[in-house]
Amino acid sequence: MVSLIGYYTTQFGELWEKSLSDLIEEAINGVLKNTRLDKKQIGAIFFSNMLAGVLENNLHTVSKIAEILGVNIPIFRVEAACASGGVAFHLAKNYLDANPGKNVLVIGAEKMTDYSPEETTSALASAASGEEQEAGLTFPGLYAMMAQYYLGKYKYTEENLAYVSLKNHYHGTLNDKAHFRKQITIEQVMSSPYIAYPLKVLDSCTVSDGASALVLSSDRNVGRKEKSEIKVLASETANDKISLKERNSIDEILATEISADKAFTKAKVNRKDIKVAEVHDCFSIAELLAMEDLGFWKKGKGGKRIKELSTMYGSDGDLIVNTSGGLKASGHPVGATGIKQIGEIFLQLTGQATNRQVNGAKFGLAHNVGGSGGTAVVTILGV
Amino acid sequence: MVSLIGYYTTQFGELWEKSLSDLIEEAINGVLKNTRLDKKQIGAIFFSNMLAGVLENNLHTVSKIAEILGVNIPIFRVEAACASGGVAFHLAKNYLDANPGKNVLVIGAEKMTDYSPEETTSALASAASGEEQEAGLTFPGLYAMMAQYYLGKYKYTEENLAYVSLKNHYHGTLNDKAHFRKQITIEQVMSSPYIAYPLKVLDSCTVSDGASALVLSSDRNVGRKEKSEIKVLASETANDKISLKERNSIDEILATEISADKAFTKAKVNRKDIKVAEVHDCFSIAELLAMEDLGFWKKGKGGKRIKELSTMYGSDGDLIVNTSGGLKASGHPVGATGIKQIGEIFLQLTGQATNRQVNGAKFGLAHNVGGSGGTAVVTILGV
Repeated sequence: MVSLIGYYTTQFGELWEKSLSDLIEEAINGVLKNTRLDKKQIGAIFFSNMLAGVLENNLHTVSKIAEILGVNIPIFRVEAACASGGVAFHLAKNYLDANPGKNVLVIGAEKMTDYSPEETTSALASAASGEEQEAGLTFPGLYAMMAQYYLGKYKYTEENLAYVSLKNHYHGTLNDKAHFRKQITIEQVMSSPYIAYPLKVLDSCTVSDGASALVLSSDRNVGRKEKSEIKVLASETANDKISLKERNSIDEILATEISADKAFTKAKVNRKDIKVAEVHDCFSIAELLAMEDLGFWKKGKGGKRIKELSTMYGSDGDLIVNTSGGLKASGHPVGATGIKQIGEIFLQLTGQATNRQVNGAKFGLAHNVGGSGGTAVVTILGV
Repeated sequence: MVSLIGYYTTQFGELWEKSLSDLIEEAINGVLKNTRLDKKQIGAIFFSNMLAGVLENNLHTVSKIAEILGVNIPIFRVEAACASGGVAFHLAKNYLDANPGKNVLVIGAEKMTDYSPEETTSALASAASGEEQEAGLTFPGLYAMMAQYYLGKYKYTEENLAYVSLKNHYHGTLNDKAHFRKQITIEQVMSSPYIAYPLKVLDSCTVSDGASALVLSSDRNVGRKEKSEIKVLASETANDKISLKERNSIDEILATEISADKAFTKAKVNRKDIKVAEVHDCFSIAELLAMEDLGFWKKGKGGKRIKELSTMYGSDGDLIVNTSGGLKASGHPVGATGIKQIGEIFLQLTGQATNRQVNGAKFGLAHNVGGSGGTAVVTILGV
């Protein structure tokens, strides 16, 4: 059994004074300190990053990490667009399954705010198909089509979507590492400018800088020393067609459905056992699709369910979602996001989530998506 | 035990009529045909590519592969500069170790010749440190410093280096998939223009387009059906500092030494058992360093040994090196290179190497390097 024995995240935000290397170094040193491990006890590192090649001509970052840390161990870089973090975690767990008795560090980092909005938007569009890029589609445009279709099919309005942002911004106020820590109202969401109809500024996550790191372990000597240890019950991933127009349906993400079914089967856990979840809310519509595709809500019911706010911290709901603030308020430094999601569940299940602690949670889930759904990863953790 | 059960490579060269997707599709279909496997029998795919993000804003290629192939299985993209292929193979083997009974496809592809030399050279420099890039160093420059140091330290001349190119170009004439199929002379190498003193045009590999694919298997049902099956005895990787100036020595590649030692120990094979090897000859100097760092030749003896041409096909040497033509003559479509190297050893050990067949080889080795030595992978295969 592979355990998660520590987590560290940098602040997420506009960190203009910090380079990608600075963020990586802070996150690695932070998680080593939190786990009381020496770097010599780390057997391998998995590194998640999407954009450093495109934005700063910075590839072969694995070797830079070897230099920062002064180690010669295997270091692997994984890229799967916005799901890079979840996929890196998946491969790290897999690495431990094949090489038991080791500690493996997983780190995700992204540096996005030093560039113009045009540069960042274009770089992010690299996760769409070439045809979509040539048609001028950006990710707000792709998710706007999914939103428009969903709202029309199930007779909802833009206001239904706004509740996702309301909830996640409230959670952001409770997380001192979040990019945005300001409560917003439904009226503010509704009156914010359109990015791509029907999605508005406040339906959309931001670009952020940040790095997050975890240590996975099947080293029994280390595990026993740790008080904060939770089990990785499942980490499952699936891929799907990159182009929205090639999919059978655009109001569901098949890769999420497949990953979730595999993960729940593998973990031998029921949907109702999950008390905390981090789901991929790059846009408000994405959280509704995620809740349905993960099997928490029935298809088409998301617009109604979100208005009940039963997934908001402090409600009497059975499942609290995106206590970190989600991508919306916590920020979305792409390579770090999937790691931070799992880290947030780690904090919740080990009782370290401070003023946003969900009490009594024994199982949690993290859900990370790449592109408009071409990659999905579902991770289930348990005490 | 993980077996290698099939290989396919596209032509390497200036393939202006083919896109990255075209090359991927050809290589995947080719290896499925060679292994007589249906795509439904593939459990996962590992994809190696370095530059599509930088050169054509093309990331999240895993999802594109899902679309090309019409599958929803896990697909992983790995990047480790010019060692991307070797690292993808390493993680694929690791995946099978953790998930026995499956078939895993490994594919590497790169599209490099549609861009200006300045664009490609700059993109390749992304594998060097930021400081090296800012200093104006390109990879010819970095390897030139290593060459200059080596030649001075061991009292060799540029002519010693030229024998690497002579040999590998001869091998290229025997490989119908090679980019260059023209024999060259020592005089031609010596009179070719300098790229970065003391390295000349004919000391240097080219940029190429191409894709190569392998299938790894621990599915016993499939394995038994296959006639061409060889064992993956070891696949080991190590990393080192990215900046040349941070290394203890620049006439050896520590990551290669560590990987080789680990691989020979794991495979329980001696250096003298290896009869065919593909080593990373991005520049002529690199093959000499590789032969020494892998432990085939004593440190500093490479310049002398290469002139004996005992590693050339048709000689009576005990170890024939780079029968594919190496990066020098076979070409270097970066993401494909590490896969092609292993594929060449597969052809040799299964008796499919046609007019360059080394007879009686029971063990072979492939050696893939990223950057100026920040990553190395050593793979040992056996019948």
